Amino acid sequence: MGGMTDPRLTPLAASLPATVPFTGPETLERRLGVAFRARLGANESGFGPSPRAVEAMARAARDAWMYGDPEVHELRHAIAAHHGCDPAHVIVGEGIDGLLGLLVRLVVTGGTEVVTSLGAYPTFNFHVAGFGGRLRTVPYREDRQDPEALTGLAREVGARLIYLSNPDNPMGGMHGPDVIGQMIEAVPEGALLVLDEAYAELAPEGSLPRVDPADPRVIRFRTFSKAHGLAGLRVGYGIGPRDLISAFDRVRNHFGLGRVAQAGALAAIRDEEWPREVAGRVAAARDEVARIARAAGLRPLPSCTNFVAIDCGRDGAFAKSVLEGLLRRGVFVRMPGVAPLDRCIRVTVGPGEALAALAEALPDALAEAQA
Amino acid sequence: MGGMTDPRLTPLAASLPATVPFTGPETLERRLGVAFRARLGANESGFGPSPRAVEAMARAARDAWMYGDPEVHELRHAIAAHHGCDPAHVIVGEGIDGLLGLLVRLVVTGGTEVVTSLGAYPTFNFHVAGFGGRLRTVPYREDRQDPEALTGLAREVGARLIYLSNPDNPMGGMHGPDVIGQMIEAVPEGALLVLDEAYAELAPEGSLPRVDPADPRVIRFRTFSKAHGLAGLRVGYGIGPRDLISAFDRVRNHFGLGRVAQAGALAAIRDEEWPREVAGRVAAARDEVARIARAAGLRPLPSCTNFVAIDCGRDGAFAKSVLEGLLRRGVFVRMPGVAPLDRCIRVTVGPGEALAALAEALPDALAEAQA
Repeated sequence: MGGMTDPRLTPLAASLPATVPFTGPETLERRLGVAFRARLGANESGFGPSPRAVEAMARAARDAWMYGDPEVHELRHAIAAHHGCDPAHVIVGEGIDGLLGLLVRLVVTGGTEVVTSLGAYPTFNFHVAGFGGRLRTVPYREDRQDPEALTGLAREVGARLIYLSNPDNPMGGMHGPDVIGQMIEAVPEGALLVLDEAYAELAPEGSLPRVDPADPRVIRFRTFSKAHGLAGLRVGYGIGPRDLISAFDRVRNHFGLGRVAQAGALAAIRDEEWPREVAGRVAAARDEVARIARAAGLRPLPSCTNFVAIDCGRDGAFAKSVLEGLLRRGVFVRMPGVAPLDRCIRVTVGPGEALAALAEALPDALAEAQA
Repeated sequence: MGGMTDPRLTPLAASLPATVPFTGPETLERRLGVAFRARLGANESGFGPSPRAVEAMARAARDAWMYGDPEVHELRHAIAAHHGCDPAHVIVGEGIDGLLGLLVRLVVTGGTEVVTSLGAYPTFNFHVAGFGGRLRTVPYREDRQDPEALTGLAREVGARLIYLSNPDNPMGGMHGPDVIGQMIEAVPEGALLVLDEAYAELAPEGSLPRVDPADPRVIRFRTFSKAHGLAGLRVGYGIGPRDLISAFDRVRNHFGLGRVAQAGALAAIRDEEWPREVAGRVAAARDEVARIARAAGLRPLPSCTNFVAIDCGRDGAFAKSVLEGLLRRGVFVRMPGVAPLDRCIRVTVGPGEALAALAEALPDALAEAQA
């Protein structure tokens, strides 16, 4: 590709790097010439979507000649009912990624200050850079995001957005309701806490904060990509104050949520049982991944998500060579991008076969990296 | 909703109206308390998608736990092969709407001049306003966009983007290869022609211009929403110069095109027969809509698309009351937004039952409007 920059781009667009937040497993397969036998890198749910969602999508496929409802009325109301809030507090969109992009567009312009943790979700950073924001980072503290330092820095620099994922990606831990509640109290005037709860349905009972949907200091994001097993549909939603939620209508791609996606997500949100069942299987699989890690002499970090960060015990270069050994053996995993988090590899949990492939490949990949 | 403007919005976001480009038929149904028996307003294809695409989507539904390939490798290569060009000239995205939004974001910033026709595609205008561009319009001439006036105005104001849909939406006509070729020659230095070919597969044989994908003056857009009958999947693509195409990677939602959408579109592009068959049915249905219009004493405009603009013979208020009469009778149609185009209603063609509903409702709606 390389090539020239098109002279018609805006100065901002021309200044953006060509790098992408994540390389897809398909790209790696093409690059390495392997077909992955275990897809454990993207925090997808190998336990699959609810059979009711699959059925709803197959049925909707025949109706795919019709645009999806641009108001996403039925799904938005079902989500609101699920959370016991008014639909005016809910925005549904093309995954959390798409909604984060819209939120950043609404709030960030050239030089707007934004605060996140060093090593937190790269796609959020991609959006902030893409709209000319100035990203400030706070280091993780003992492998957890540091709420006090985040709000403190936000106050210091006059940030508009503060990003926190809870449960945390990529390390897997979480802060309890009290800590998050205190963090919300500490959000400075004029700032907004972006609380990414992508893994919420997989967290232990009682561990999630109760947040008032009308609280002007917070927008929370949820997704159908994780516990609901619908990453390939691209549906996420935000819950937040009415005025902020209604502002999304000014900039969103109104017909962007297709008919098949809406049908699948609607069936998924109505199936209360499936994510609970998945959460149980995920918990068991987390134990199994931890066992595999320990058996190889590595230290698994505690996780409230569908992945386990495994401390490889040395630096980022070493973890990277373990990861590359796994890739070559057909096991797709990822790792955090910056030190000291990058001493870990991040392994998504999955069904038995995928974990068996991991158990088989990890000792060899490790031995190779140590050699 | 109304409400306040969130104080954290950027000045640009705060200045945007809450209006949306199109009201969906589901919203109208809820508002009017009717269930439409004929959905002839959104230029969807009532002839449906290829059965192979339906099968591919149903199969992909089970795999919806996996993200779609962020490089859209297989589909992008299939599209490139279909058009006989290098994949580096092809960008695939969430419908033409989504791609137009990204293109505008790449090229338009506060005060950037943009030229389009008065009454042309509102969603393009929505994006231009959304990024602070200054939209200039050229009137239609004899119900067609005026290429010479568009490039002339672009030269005068130093426009970066010039929008033209060909075949034309909302009027249905088109310009031949010679006129478009001349228009491309007349694109001023520093400007880009945005050639929206959403209806290309429905145009008569030999009527489309041949455009060099590497030509730096043009980006063309195509979609799976019209002839392919997949409006509810949200897949479109652009063909243009390599440097411009690669710039989309800097701003797009990389995982935005889901696995089900990619599978459906891939099966659709591989089924060369289906859009041809649909084009035949569309042509016959256009004749039938024209016959229905004439039988009611109205004048249908010639069309190269899957809709027919019907001149109601008076002003916009009259056409609007005909349209409202149709809506109340369960027939969803739309109409152009500005004079003099708004003397017409715009009727999407469809299968026999839908047109029978139109034939039944139109004389009554017309008589009511005349009364």
